[in-house]
Amino acid sequence: MADLAQLRRVFDGHWGWVRDEAREALRRPEFGLAGVLGPDEHRQHVREQLQQLAKVGHSRLGFPTRYGGAGDTGASVVSFEMLGYGDLSLMVKSGVQWGLFGGAVQALGTERHHERYLPAIMSLDLPGCFAMTETGHGSDVQHLRTTATYDPHAQEFVVETPHESARKDYIGGAARDARLAVVFAQLVTGDETHGVHAFLVPVRDHDGQPCPGVRIEDCGGKAGLSGVDNGRLWFSGVRIPRENLLNRYGDVAADGTYSSPIENAGRRFFTMLGTLVRGRVSVAGGAGSATQTALSIAIRYGQVRRQFSAPGQEREVTLLDYLTHQRALLPALAKTYALRFAQEGLVRTLDELQPADGVPPHGVEKSLPDDEGERAQRELEARAAGLKAVATWHASATIQACREACGGAGYLTENRLPQLRADTDVFTTFEGDNRVLLQLVAKGLLTGYRDQLGDLDAFGMVKFYADQVWEVVAERTSARNLVDRLRRLGEADLRNREWQLALLEDREKHVLEGLAKRLRAAGEPGADAFAVFNGAQDHVLRLARVHVERILLEAFTAAVEGCEDADVRALLDRVCTLYALSTIEADLAWFLGHGRMTAGRAKRVTGEVNALCRELRPDAALLVDGFGIPEDWLDAPIAQGAEATRQDEQQAHDDAIAAG
Amino acid sequence: MADLAQLRRVFDGHWGWVRDEAREALRRPEFGLAGVLGPDEHRQHVREQLQQLAKVGHSRLGFPTRYGGAGDTGASVVSFEMLGYGDLSLMVKSGVQWGLFGGAVQALGTERHHERYLPAIMSLDLPGCFAMTETGHGSDVQHLRTTATYDPHAQEFVVETPHESARKDYIGGAARDARLAVVFAQLVTGDETHGVHAFLVPVRDHDGQPCPGVRIEDCGGKAGLSGVDNGRLWFSGVRIPRENLLNRYGDVAADGTYSSPIENAGRRFFTMLGTLVRGRVSVAGGAGSATQTALSIAIRYGQVRRQFSAPGQEREVTLLDYLTHQRALLPALAKTYALRFAQEGLVRTLDELQPADGVPPHGVEKSLPDDEGERAQRELEARAAGLKAVATWHASATIQACREACGGAGYLTENRLPQLRADTDVFTTFEGDNRVLLQLVAKGLLTGYRDQLGDLDAFGMVKFYADQVWEVVAERTSARNLVDRLRRLGEADLRNREWQLALLEDREKHVLEGLAKRLRAAGEPGADAFAVFNGAQDHVLRLARVHVERILLEAFTAAVEGCEDADVRALLDRVCTLYALSTIEADLAWFLGHGRMTAGRAKRVTGEVNALCRELRPDAALLVDGFGIPEDWLDAPIAQGAEATRQDEQQAHDDAIAAG
Repeated sequence: MADLAQLRRVFDGHWGWVRDEAREALRRPEFGLAGVLGPDEHRQHVREQLQQLAKVGHSRLGFPTRYGGAGDTGASVVSFEMLGYGDLSLMVKSGVQWGLFGGAVQALGTERHHERYLPAIMSLDLPGCFAMTETGHGSDVQHLRTTATYDPHAQEFVVETPHESARKDYIGGAARDARLAVVFAQLVTGDETHGVHAFLVPVRDHDGQPCPGVRIEDCGGKAGLSGVDNGRLWFSGVRIPRENLLNRYGDVAADGTYSSPIENAGRRFFTMLGTLVRGRVSVAGGAGSATQTALSIAIRYGQVRRQFSAPGQEREVTLLDYLTHQRALLPALAKTYALRFAQEGLVRTLDELQPADGVPPHGVEKSLPDDEGERAQRELEARAAGLKAVATWHASATIQACREACGGAGYLTENRLPQLRADTDVFTTFEGDNRVLLQLVAKGLLTGYRDQLGDLDAFGMVKFYADQVWEVVAERTSARNLVDRLRRLGEADLRNREWQLALLEDREKHVLEGLAKRLRAAGEPGADAFAVFNGAQDHVLRLARVHVERILLEAFTAAVEGCEDADVRALLDRVCTLYALSTIEADLAWFLGHGRMTAGRAKRVTGEVNALCRELRPDAALLVDGFGIPEDWLDAPIAQGAEATRQDEQQAHDDAIAAG
Repeated sequence: MADLAQLRRVFDGHWGWVRDEAREALRRPEFGLAGVLGPDEHRQHVREQLQQLAKVGHSRLGFPTRYGGAGDTGASVVSFEMLGYGDLSLMVKSGVQWGLFGGAVQALGTERHHERYLPAIMSLDLPGCFAMTETGHGSDVQHLRTTATYDPHAQEFVVETPHESARKDYIGGAARDARLAVVFAQLVTGDETHGVHAFLVPVRDHDGQPCPGVRIEDCGGKAGLSGVDNGRLWFSGVRIPRENLLNRYGDVAADGTYSSPIENAGRRFFTMLGTLVRGRVSVAGGAGSATQTALSIAIRYGQVRRQFSAPGQEREVTLLDYLTHQRALLPALAKTYALRFAQEGLVRTLDELQPADGVPPHGVEKSLPDDEGERAQRELEARAAGLKAVATWHASATIQACREACGGAGYLTENRLPQLRADTDVFTTFEGDNRVLLQLVAKGLLTGYRDQLGDLDAFGMVKFYADQVWEVVAERTSARNLVDRLRRLGEADLRNREWQLALLEDREKHVLEGLAKRLRAAGEPGADAFAVFNGAQDHVLRLARVHVERILLEAFTAAVEGCEDADVRALLDRVCTLYALSTIEADLAWFLGHGRMTAGRAKRVTGEVNALCRELRPDAALLVDGFGIPEDWLDAPIAQGAEATRQDEQQAHDDAIAAG
């Protein structure tokens, strides 16, 4: 039996100390779940908790030390992730203030903004919001319609909402609390438009009244996250000083001359967006926490809840002893571990590429990366997009499965699953619509392919774990001898990790090559490029999915190989195998259809997944305990022994009757 | 272009008049959606609407004419289904009062109960509840623990909750409104227990106070359905007259002698349950209505919402022109039609086998069916179980897909998708947990197989549509020449309906045979029957799923062939093909792994699904209009042109700028 403390150490990863500190701090009563509140009370409650978070230093983690921050990007993401075990409204609200709003000031602003605003942002003296999305443009933010037109006489920008679909929409913090907004708008100076830039626009005065020219509306009820005050903003001739342009990547001189270190407007905009990638990384992490909570509740319930008798068994059968119940929960549990390890790697890369103290205080040029740095940044963005999409869909599906696995009890608010489901639901479409994100991932892969940038797989995970461990994996997964390896491993035991890795790698390579060929048609003379691309859209999404599945298996494999404790390693190895085989099982049609597997072997995959569910069943409770969620946070009656007590009481009663 | 009125006629089916009447009646302001209400106000509002429903005659439909009912079982189910376009709390609440509570009195009681209670149940003068589920027993209701022990001296039953997990739980109506409960309890007389029977137990007096010995608790918040007052009930020495036993299938004489026309306690109980099958049929129908509403909203939005430019296109691309968007919504739309036609057949069978005027007023024996009748009843129960499971999962998945397809707008309460999702969520586990229901379906198929009851497929759908139409289909699907047919059709066009039908029929046959073989091991000496059954549980669920998929395709095919209007027929034929091919596509691993299809053909299936999406895209709006949901009920801003107006306004603004 693996040791729980050892398991947690592996699960916790590099920022275990942040997790431990959060476990201590957040169990204080002021961070407890509030129970059912009306929207106004909920918002007020969350706002007060946010103030407490600022006090315990949560808000400082990701900001530069020279302004009073802790200068630890990774810690800020992990701390956010820890909030995901509690009220997700608080998590999102903190993300808005310190991640999106504060993060934009930090990443897109320069010293004048940092000095003036960051301390007040950290302390929450200056609550803000991040006004990017418009009603008409959510995915295609490069084509936002809000304008900020420079007036050289007044040395001011005039911010304008030109028509109804250009209103800012769904903006967290806008409906109630925000005083300052980072507004994304087309920068216009003279006759020229220079693309979307970020501007600091005061939206409320000290009394909480909308500033002149600003109209604010509440978005009203939502499926969940009722503690977050999402709102809409309209600007009508709102004037802001020239200095309110966040000018790291583009500036306007007093006379109206525009300058930028990046000539191409599109490239400039995507460079700006890239600095905000932390938001996606954080959402992936938060989705993981919510998923882990749901699994903890459902698996604990499945461990004690009984239903139906079986011949030869004295008591009724425990739910988790049924194969269908195991099938509903255990592969999801395995994927949750896989995502945790991939997330760990992602946060490490983010921490390395976007150090909190790394933003240069002056000017712009010095912050531009070299080619290698830019490739690394692109890789980070693609990985963040892919993991965010997969992690948030996994959260929706898994929390749903947990709800159903708990039957009527799972539908009750007191057992938390409804709120988890409703709160996380929007994760699949905010911070980037998942389907759009997967297209970004695929685009990255295709670009790499076309440009012959070399082995796409070599970068990324390699850095996240000890080089030595990785070399073993990298050796196995190098494309060079892929065909040979597959041939050699083709009849290997299904649990053979090398075979699983080679299989997923080969699938990705094949899907990528096929798509590249298919899209080549778009470049032919007279081709309808949109029709070609659109017709291949399912192929595009498939490429991104199989790519992320490979990434997950590699991350999990590396984590297992890095395990020092032999028992934990053996346990996680088996969990990893369940992840691998249930992933392969879900796509058997492809492996069969492309001659990668015989029918007999494919059939055995299903048998093996069943066998692994059976084998892991005794460790299910340990595996959810491995998440390290403090007991107080699992305050669902069905997760806390009420059901077990009732079942025992019933048994005692039945026994008494049987004894006459 | 198919004619909308003609399409609606086909969609509406036999009880089109009920649907038209409901469309008229329910658009009256008192049935309007209430908007966001607190739970207390919502319950009060729903209670008032329920009273209005009684006034407009909704409640009479399914009850016998001799007590003032309309004697139309089918109409009562369809009328319930129509409520599914509005506030689902009202639908469920009406189902509790007139379906579950009233239905149990009607189906399990005899004349003395009918005379005394049915008029007051219809008029809502007597609000009631259906107290079957206990905290400890939800799926395995044969082993409920509540007892009703006969006391011959007082000629009373004493109802008792023996321990905590025997409390009645999640009981709709219990927390606030119900005065009388149909309580399911183990009937004990003398030293003998005769299994679960239903008893009428007063739970509240005229002032709304709990009756002596009855404890009532509110279940509190739920994911959705906040207008339904679900509660818990405990009984402590509650005495009720002997006559309160609903005695159609079992009675106790004054001296305590038990009698029943059905000797075996298990068979007796399942016979009783079988009379309550209308509940599952109704839930399947209600799930359909909610699904249709969600699809109408998402498809209308997808028709006007634009995002991203494409080369050579003047305006941004409409969402529904993207293949991924079509993929997310159109196969779901096709399956929604398939379910509608299968539901129509199911309601017809129910109406035939359980006519509202058919319950004999006296005694029991006459109501027992002959062998043929019993087989038909079993078939009805299996089909209701299967369609309920598939329809409710389809509702969850489709409403979710619709929510995501509408992005942030889909997360707003005003656009209704959150409420639809949350309200329907419990449908997958109430009125029978879907996984348990699928096991019932499979059991029915296996039993039929073992007993050589002949062609399982011949009964069922056959009766639902004109015999002549059916004969054609039946000829094609008769098992006799299946192998020949498949060989002959193996290279037919993928859109060939004969091939699709044969393929699904063959798959079911193969899965059934394989499972039968596998389970045979349980009968061998020394076998662990539970382990054998449990190990095959995924196979069991698969059998039920492929069975229902075949049923759906047959029902859809029959509906198309019965279409008189050529244009509507052509349109629905294509929708049916999309249903067939997307169903086949989802299980390509099986068809490939079992040599039913070559890799090349399998690949073409995906291409054909894409092609069908493209072909049906222009008809998407017509197809959702075919549901006939009145405009007032689609009161989501994104479904009512607000978005279109905004997009046009933006375009006008852009054009003005372009013109200089």
